[in-house]
Parts: sequence; C-alpha cells; structure tokens
Amino acid sequence: MKDMTLPTRITVVALSETFDLAANMAEVADPRVHLVRPSEVEDPSLVTCALAWLPADDAFDAYPNMRMVSSIAAGVDSLIACPSLRDDIVVTRIRDEEQARMMAGFAAWHVVHHHRQMGTYINNQATQTWDRSFRADMASNVTVGVLGFGLMGRHTARALATMGYKVIGASRSGGEPEPEVELLSGDGAIAETAARSDILINLLPLTAQTRDILNAELFSTMPKGAVLVQLGRGEQLIEEDLLAALDSGQLSAASLDVFRLEPLPKDSPIWTHPKVVITPHKASDTTRSEVLRQLADNYEALVQGLTPPGAVNRGAGY
Amino acid sequence: MKDMTLPTRITVVALSETFDLAANMAEVADPRVHLVRPSEVEDPSLVTCALAWLPADDAFDAYPNMRMVSSIAAGVDSLIACPSLRDDIVVTRIRDEEQARMMAGFAAWHVVHHHRQMGTYINNQATQTWDRSFRADMASNVTVGVLGFGLMGRHTARALATMGYKVIGASRSGGEPEPEVELLSGDGAIAETAARSDILINLLPLTAQTRDILNAELFSTMPKGAVLVQLGRGEQLIEEDLLAALDSGQLSAASLDVFRLEPLPKDSPIWTHPKVVITPHKASDTTRSEVLRQLADNYEALVQGLTPPGAVNRGAGY
Ligand SMILES: NC(=O)c1ccc[n+]([C@@H]2O[C@H](COP(=O)([O-])OP(=O)(O)OC[C@H]3O[C@@H](n4cnc5c(N)ncnc54)[C@H](OP(=O)(O)O)[C@@H]3O)[C@@H](O)[C@H]2O)c1
Ligand SMILES: NC(=O)c1ccc[n+]([C@@H]2O[C@H](COP(=O)([O-])OP(=O)(O)OC[C@H]3O[C@@H](n4cnc5c(N)ncnc54)[C@H](OP(=O)(O)O)[C@@H]3O)[C@@H](O)[C@H]2O)c1
Repeated sequence: MKDMTLPTRITVVALSETFDLAANMAEVADPRVHLVRPSEVEDPSLVTCALAWLPADDAFDAYPNMRMVSSIAAGVDSLIACPSLRDDIVVTRIRDEEQARMMAGFAAWHVVHHHRQMGTYINNQATQTWDRSFRADMASNVTVGVLGFGLMGRHTARALATMGYKVIGASRSGGEPEPEVELLSGDGAIAETAARSDILINLLPLTAQTRDILNAELFSTMPKGAVLVQLGRGEQLIEEDLLAALDSGQLSAASLDVFRLEPLPKDSPIWTHPKVVITPHKASDTTRSEVLRQLADNYEALVQGLTPPGAVNRGAGY
Repeated sequence: MKDMTLPTRITVVALSETFDLAANMAEVADPRVHLVRPSEVEDPSLVTCALAWLPADDAFDAYPNMRMVSSIAAGVDSLIACPSLRDDIVVTRIRDEEQARMMAGFAAWHVVHHHRQMGTYINNQATQTWDRSFRADMASNVTVGVLGFGLMGRHTARALATMGYKVIGASRSGGEPEPEVELLSGDGAIAETAARSDILINLLPLTAQTRDILNAELFSTMPKGAVLVQLGRGEQLIEEDLLAALDSGQLSAASLDVFRLEPLPKDSPIWTHPKVVITPHKASDTTRSEVLRQLADNYEALVQGLTPPGAVNRGAGY
C-alpha cells in the first residue's frame, strides 16, 4: 500500500570526495529530501539536485541535467572551484542566523582571550598563582576589525560592540549600517581595517581576491603587537608569513581555526608555536536538519522560477 | 603666588585597611579632588568625604562631619558592613557602563569556554591532536541565567543574547525590558532562574539576602551537568557545596572569579579541582580616573542638595 500523504521528494545526490556525506546525514531526515549516494543512483540523467562538500573534480560530469547544488556550509569555495561544475548550475549556500550567532560567540572568546590574557590565568592556576598585576586596556581603546561583513561578520561585530570594543567592519559594498560599528567598503577597506586593528578577525569568503590576503605585507601595516583571529578559510593565510610576524613581535598572538591543509599536519610548526591558539575548524556549523531544510527551500524556489534565497553570485565567487 | 585658576578642591580621605589607596590613586589626578591619607589629615573635623575599600572597623570614628563615602568599585558591601559607618553618611558606588561591557565580555568568555569546550582544544593543541568530534548544542538550546540584572547583569545578558543563547535575567524589581531576554523578578526569581539554567552566572550584589545563596540546595535544583560562573562576591558561594556538586556530577564545571578569602589560599582545594576555572578577581574594573571623576560628581550633587547619581540604598544593601 502506498503512503499517499508523502509529497514527492527531491532526489538529491551527495557529492564529496572526503567523506560519506549521505551516511553523515542519515541521522536526520527531511520529508522533502531523498538523499542518495552516487552508487545508488539508477539513472543519473534524472538527478537535478546535489548536496556537496569538497566534490571530486569530475563529480558533476555524470549528471547532465543537474540544476542546483547546495553547499553544506556557509562557504562555497570548494564547489565553485570544481572543474566539472557547469556554468548553468545554480550554487546555493546555507544562511543560518543561529550559526552566525554562534560564530559571534566563538570569535568573542578569542578576542577576550587575547585582550584579557585569559591564557595566563589558566597557566597561573596550574601553579596556584594569584596574580592580579595585568591591567587590560579599556575595551573602548581596543579596535577590533572584522574582515567580511556578511552573515558571520555582522553578528560577530554586533556581539563585540556590546562588549565595548571599538569595531570596524570591512566589506565590498558596505551594506546596511550597524549600530556602534564603523563600516568601510570598497577597494581600500581591507587594508585600512587591518592598519587600524589591534585585533583583526578574518571572516571573508575564499575568492580569487581574498586568497593569500593575510600576508606579510598586510601584517606589516598593522599596529605593532596586534592579534590575528583567522576564522575564514585556510587559503587566505600565508602561514609562514604569520609565524615570521609572530617571531618578530610585529604580531603578538594569533588564533587559527582554519588551515591550508586540514587536519593540520602533525609536524606543522603552527601546532607548537607559543603565541598561537588552535581550534580544529570548529568555529561554527549549522545543523544537519537545517542543511536539508534549506536545500529543499532553495530547490523549490528554483523550480518555481524564483531565485533561491541561498543562491550565491558565481561571478563574485561567494 | 596663588594659582587663581584652581577651583576649590574636595579633600577626600582614602580609607582602606588592606592597601594604600592614596598611593594607588596617585598616578591619576582629578582637578576637583585632593586625596589624602588619614595620617595627612590636619583637622579631621573638616573632612566630609571619603574614598574607601575594605575600611577598618573604626575607620569613620575620627571624622565627625563625614557626609559621603564612595566605593572604588561597583560593590559597596564592604562599606555598608563597616561598624563605624554612621547612618547619615551617604554611600555611593561607581556606575561605569564601560566596566559593565567589559564584564559582559569576561562573562561571555566563560560561557563560551564551557559550552564549546574550549579547554579541550587548548589541551589537544599540546599533543598536536586534531579532534573535531565534539558537537556543541546549538546556542538556542542552552539557557543562560543571569542572577542580578543591574548594570553588570544587563550588559552581560545583552551580549549573550547576541550570541544566540536563551537568556533569563533575575532581579528584585524586574526593571526595564531587555530585547531577547526573559526577565524574572520577585521572591522566586533566583530559584526559578537557577532551576532552568544550563549555565548560571552570578552577578548579584552581596547583601543579607544574597549571602550564601549559591549553596547545595540551589545546585540540587539545577539541570544535571549545569555550569556555575561566579562573578559576584565570594561570600555568596558556599565553596564546599560547589566542590561536592562538582564531584557528584550535579554540576559539570565552574568558573570562579571571587572567593570567600582573597587571595585564594595556596592550600585551597579549589585551585586544583579539574572542573574549576579560576581568575583572580579580574572580571572587570573601572579606571582610577573614572573613580575620582564620579566621586567628585557625586559629592557636588550632594552639596547642591541633590541625590548623588551613584548613591546606593543603604536599607537594601546595594
Ligand atoms: N571556520 C568556520 O567554522 C566557518 C563557519 C562559517 C563560515 N566560515 C567562513 O566565513 C566566510 C563568510 O561567511 P558569511 O556567511 O559571512 O559570508 P557572506 O554572507 O557571503 O559574507 C561575505 C562578506 O565578505 C565580503 N567580501 C567578499 N569579498 C570581499 C573582498 N574582496 N573585499 C572585501 N569584502 C569582501 C562581502 O562583501 P559584500 O557584503 O559587499 O558582499 C560580505 O560582507 C565563509 O565563506 C566561510 O569561508 C567559516
Ligand atoms: N568580579 C568582579 O570583578 C566584579 C566587578 C563588578 C561588580 N561585581 C559584583 O557584581 C555586583 C553587581 O554589580 P552591578 O553594578 O550590576 O550592581 P547593581 O547595578 O546594583 O545591580 C544589582 C542587581 O541585583 C539585583 N538584586 C539585588 N538583590 C537581589 C535579590 N535579593 N534577589 C534578586 N535580585 C537582587 C538588583 O535588583 P533590582 O534591579 O530590582 O534592584 C539588581 O538587578 C556588585 O555588587 C559586585 O559584587 C564584581
């Protein structure tokens, strides 16, 4: 007997070279989505929708009628870079405000950690040392720059402003004003923000323009002793340049959540650098059920001839 | 030759049993304040204003015409408890919004530290371990209770709400609504907030009602595995009860910034408890120049027959 209440489900193929995306998603279910592995697809010409993360170079070749692919995350750089992704395939991303708020909390932890020297208190506890001598600057004297003022950057800036920091946000277009935040935009925005930031948070998407943007030249223009909090994408940072800037004292500390190679190789000198705090790409994630829900919403919009709410501008690269 | 441009300065005696308050303040200067040690006072009957922190029991006996005493901090408990403080002496506190915003940042560090298990990442870095397995609850599923919704509590709640946490604030009167925060007030507010909080932040002033309020009974009503962040005053926490609750698993972790005895004695078991994060009463301070500025403002208001903006309600105890 057929269950007549089930609506037609969208068959979605899971494409990833690095992990079994379908198995990973199996715990959650969305009544509108039927997620399958490539090996489970009977007729690839009938598949019009994909969910992907680090797809193989030829991942899309098998699917001549693919119309849309959704990233499982906010970033789409690994999708857009895929050679088999034809120009007419719509790329969507997840836009999850709660994920952005959790990014704000994660970023705030790192900012406060460096500004208030919380690591020293953790170390002092190990030797039962009560040392009140460090006087942090008042927050209004600490400028925090946020590179990238999208969903993640805006929420991060908002949280930091409530904590009294002087916050600057940099984006291409500027966008809506944000209370208590200074917005810079256009060509010089990143450079000016970096040059004024005691603590610089990177939340830019990875594009041709932002690759390698965190480099020796940028660090040299920052205030001496500044701090980098890198939460965007590994390919935006030249890791050797960071270590050199830390060793020279030009930068005083860094927090890194993303790396050129992940997992960060055991023998990377970054692991043991005394001025670096490492987290394993855990700044913020959406939930798996939200991924499927937004994928279905985006696809339904596309089928209705509308622009999917999560569609990215493939020309801009994000 | 007299400098005719100097206005009349208020002679303020610095009263503290634990440190040389006048020396500590010497770095800053306020044109309206002449701060002196008790030993420097020629005629105590002419002194009408004091600045104090943990004054000796008889500190006020020498000053028959004392009209006002200012705390150097937000808390006035040590002043109000002073036996020689006559009923007619007005007690003022510092109200510094920037201090409250920095309190918010400090509290947020502790909340995120426990929620996102940042300590585990710090430990993992020491062994070059890349472990992404921990999945934090989404922030909207984490209830953070803020006991005390004054200057400190409100700013703390505001910052945590921007990070997506579900925030409850408890006060006596309720006060102005705060966006995205649920306010509880009146007799059962503290108990209800604790009973619902996955992470409970204490920012209550020390009064007869709040002494020993963080005790075994309160902990037993909290969700199993909850976290305590204690930023108020040491005398509000029964330290043995906390350690027992941590050992039984009723609480999973605690952050403590204030203690019954400060500095925390070397042999206190709190120092080495694996579930406790200790900071040496550094959550947030005002600047010394702000202390003198507000003292002068408060005293000038008093002289003009107005209620000083920082005056506390001595009956309520804060
Ligand atoms: N570590 C993690 O766990 C994690 C989690 C989530 C996201 N991320 C990273 O964070 C990135 C940003 O996420 P999002 O959701 O905030 O993206 P988004 O909403 O697309 O925002 C991107 C922002 O960057 C700006 N931008 C892009 N190119 C620029 C350039 N060349 N110069 C100046 N500004 C530029 C954009 O300017 P306009 O506003 O003018 O378009 C926009 O403000 C993602 O792409 C991902 O790489 C990391
Ligand atoms: N660790 C540190 O470095 C540090 C730094 C600053 C302050 N502190 C501590 O934080 C405390 C609070 O500072 P603040 O500036 O926020 O004080 P505040 O502005 O006076 O606020 C006190 C809050 O507590 C509430 N309250 C008082 N007694 C209560 C009771 N019995 N039940 C429920 N609520 C009660 C008050 O309710 P109403 O609103 O109804 O009056 C008010 O909301 C200070 O007294 C100090 O002990 C610690």
